Amino acid sequence: MRHTITVLVENKFGVLARISSLFSARGFNIESLSVGETIDPTISRMTLVTSGDDQIIEQVIKQLRRLIDVIKVSDLSDMEYVEREMVLLKVSADSQNRAEILRICDIFRGKIIDVSPKTLTLEVTGVQDKISAMIGLLKPMGIIEIARTGKVAMSRAKK
Amino acid sequence: MRHTITVLVENKFGVLARISSLFSARGFNIESLSVGETIDPTISRMTLVTSGDDQIIEQVIKQLRRLIDVIKVSDLSDMEYVEREMVLLKVSADSQNRAEILRICDIFRGKIIDVSPKTLTLEVTGVQDKISAMIGLLKPMGIIEIARTGKVAMSRAKK
Repeated sequence: MRHTITVLVENKFGVLARISSLFSARGFNIESLSVGETIDPTISRMTLVTSGDDQIIEQVIKQLRRLIDVIKVSDLSDMEYVEREMVLLKVSADSQNRAEILRICDIFRGKIIDVSPKTLTLEVTGVQDKISAMIGLLKPMGIIEIARTGKVAMSRAKK
Repeated sequence: MRHTITVLVENKFGVLARISSLFSARGFNIESLSVGETIDPTISRMTLVTSGDDQIIEQVIKQLRRLIDVIKVSDLSDMEYVEREMVLLKVSADSQNRAEILRICDIFRGKIIDVSPKTLTLEVTGVQDKISAMIGLLKPMGIIEIARTGKVAMSRAKK
């Protein structure tokens, strides 16, 4: 099963290496990872996505909790959560397909963040399916470069 | 100096651990990191931000290039680039400050992605200064949770 895990850690060097080693030692690939500061600059928050046997992931989470710089670990797969990803896409754009790219960008509520005579660079956010759908539509135009942030996620507030 | 580095890597387990170990062995903290798939699902793209002595970072980049699963390393600090970050913010919202939060969200072209009687969850994208400014404005309302993707960046197209 695919798991989305958030980890609060002390913002110190070496923490990321220890956490990623823990996953690779078990043969787990980290499919996507985002690390950013929180309100407290000494604390960072990671969102990581991995797939594998539920029991082994549970063990990995227990080991994560034992690491000295790890403050909190949550497996969001057990709860309701909101998730988003952002992608930057540099697409070939000539006079023929420029209007079509702008239309696709508009449909997905993207933003144009850079323009050149031969390219357009788009920023789009959404759930991963939406982003994949957009990439699928732009692929025939020629995608020159792509940068995805990886998923960030947060538990839903209780209604 | 602060460096924004993008790395194309084979999407295999252990790659992230090797790369992050390379930085921590030199005493560099990775301030932010984003890893996501590219168009080719066997290849991932990382954007990482680190600060430190230029010469030592140059050495680290050389060592990165020597790693077997590393395809390409670019230090964007040497060129013009576009950068964006996304943040999810869960903010305390009562009848008194709800309108104010919506107004701030609107000014920063954010989106409301979750609502509960006591909270609002916002999604905002932008350069890091813009995101920090928005966080500063929302802080007095009470930020319950924050998840930043870390910066993603891409070289600008030549005009």
